[in-house]
Amino acid sequence: MPRGAVRVDLNISLDGYATTTDQTPENPFGHDWGRLVGAYTATRTFRARVLGDTSGAGTTGVDEAYAEAYFEEVGAEIMGAGMFGLHDHGDDPDWRGWWGENPPFHVPVFVLTHTPHPTLEMEGGTTFRFVDTDIEHALELAHEAAGGKDVRIGGGPTTVRQFLAAGLVDRLHVAIAPILLGRGIRLWDDLRGLEAGYDVVAETADSGTIHLTFRRE
Amino acid sequence: MPRGAVRVDLNISLDGYATTTDQTPENPFGHDWGRLVGAYTATRTFRARVLGDTSGAGTTGVDEAYAEAYFEEVGAEIMGAGMFGLHDHGDDPDWRGWWGENPPFHVPVFVLTHTPHPTLEMEGGTTFRFVDTDIEHALELAHEAAGGKDVRIGGGPTTVRQFLAAGLVDRLHVAIAPILLGRGIRLWDDLRGLEAGYDVVAETADSGTIHLTFRRE
Repeated sequence: MPRGAVRVDLNISLDGYATTTDQTPENPFGHDWGRLVGAYTATRTFRARVLGDTSGAGTTGVDEAYAEAYFEEVGAEIMGAGMFGLHDHGDDPDWRGWWGENPPFHVPVFVLTHTPHPTLEMEGGTTFRFVDTDIEHALELAHEAAGGKDVRIGGGPTTVRQFLAAGLVDRLHVAIAPILLGRGIRLWDDLRGLEAGYDVVAETADSGTIHLTFRRE
Repeated sequence: MPRGAVRVDLNISLDGYATTTDQTPENPFGHDWGRLVGAYTATRTFRARVLGDTSGAGTTGVDEAYAEAYFEEVGAEIMGAGMFGLHDHGDDPDWRGWWGENPPFHVPVFVLTHTPHPTLEMEGGTTFRFVDTDIEHALELAHEAAGGKDVRIGGGPTTVRQFLAAGLVDRLHVAIAPILLGRGIRLWDDLRGLEAGYDVVAETADSGTIHLTFRRE
């Protein structure tokens, strides 16, 4: 079976941070997270696909076009242990991640971890499988599970950077918010020369977001 | 007299580097410098104003519009000691900088340094004055010399960052080349929240360059 592409979509700040650091008990997402992903969560597609808002409300235009593309043809996803939520809850055998009982993936998800964990069948088609393996083999498993559709490397940024450094990503889309976060985990560290072998296209949205796409030539 | 604006124009990489590191004796500018500033040096304005090419050759469009704006109404410039070339030649009383006898500034230039150095009158209207003072006072001197025109903070990135952090810059234009340099001096370090108080506008050029402007609201 022909394989789908390996894709990444991330929101980063102008200074390259893909994570935020201002979470507090009172504001568990922090103020920065909303600013980082705000242009995406305002789109009609996000509102319909993630929030279940069928009213047709939400922004259109460039941000919306990328939001639509985000949901196209993904057959499996790979994420780091931190993105699933293992770092804070690894000792709890009943922990089912912080994505809720109906996570927004709706496909098989492979979680990279050295900690054994039983497979979790969630609602809506998401299955979390925990794999203690290298990224190349995890990608093999994901391609098999995707049945010819694309595989997304979901995050976090450290995991994405590993796949980028290994040359395994066919399409990287970053939505750059015009803000400076000043701290967190930077996507671009240690990726000197990444652009070689990619076509790079940038587009700006009315929201001020810069959509940058690295695509295999 | 009314004061002009305080402006910055810099070329940076996608990962935020404003300097390059691959200089060698055989290739004193390095390969990266050409890639970092290539979209600018290809413009019709750069070719005419800096190279003296009166043939009308060079790119037009978005990159050219920013190149034209670069030369508008600057009455004085401030730069760090490194940009003048003092770091390598500070002990040489005859050193006149690495900008040649007819430097491309054509206005009074204030060089921030703790090393006393006699004023240098160059050809074409450039005067280098060496000032051992804080950035606020250097800006006073530059405003006086500019006679109501704009003052440019020329560089390097460490000097620019000081002026940005102190809230002294009215307009910051960065031309972001779609390349990852991976090392050097980053413009955006320690500038968390810089966007507050600025309008931020991004525009993309056919060259792949992203032109980003922070303008005082």
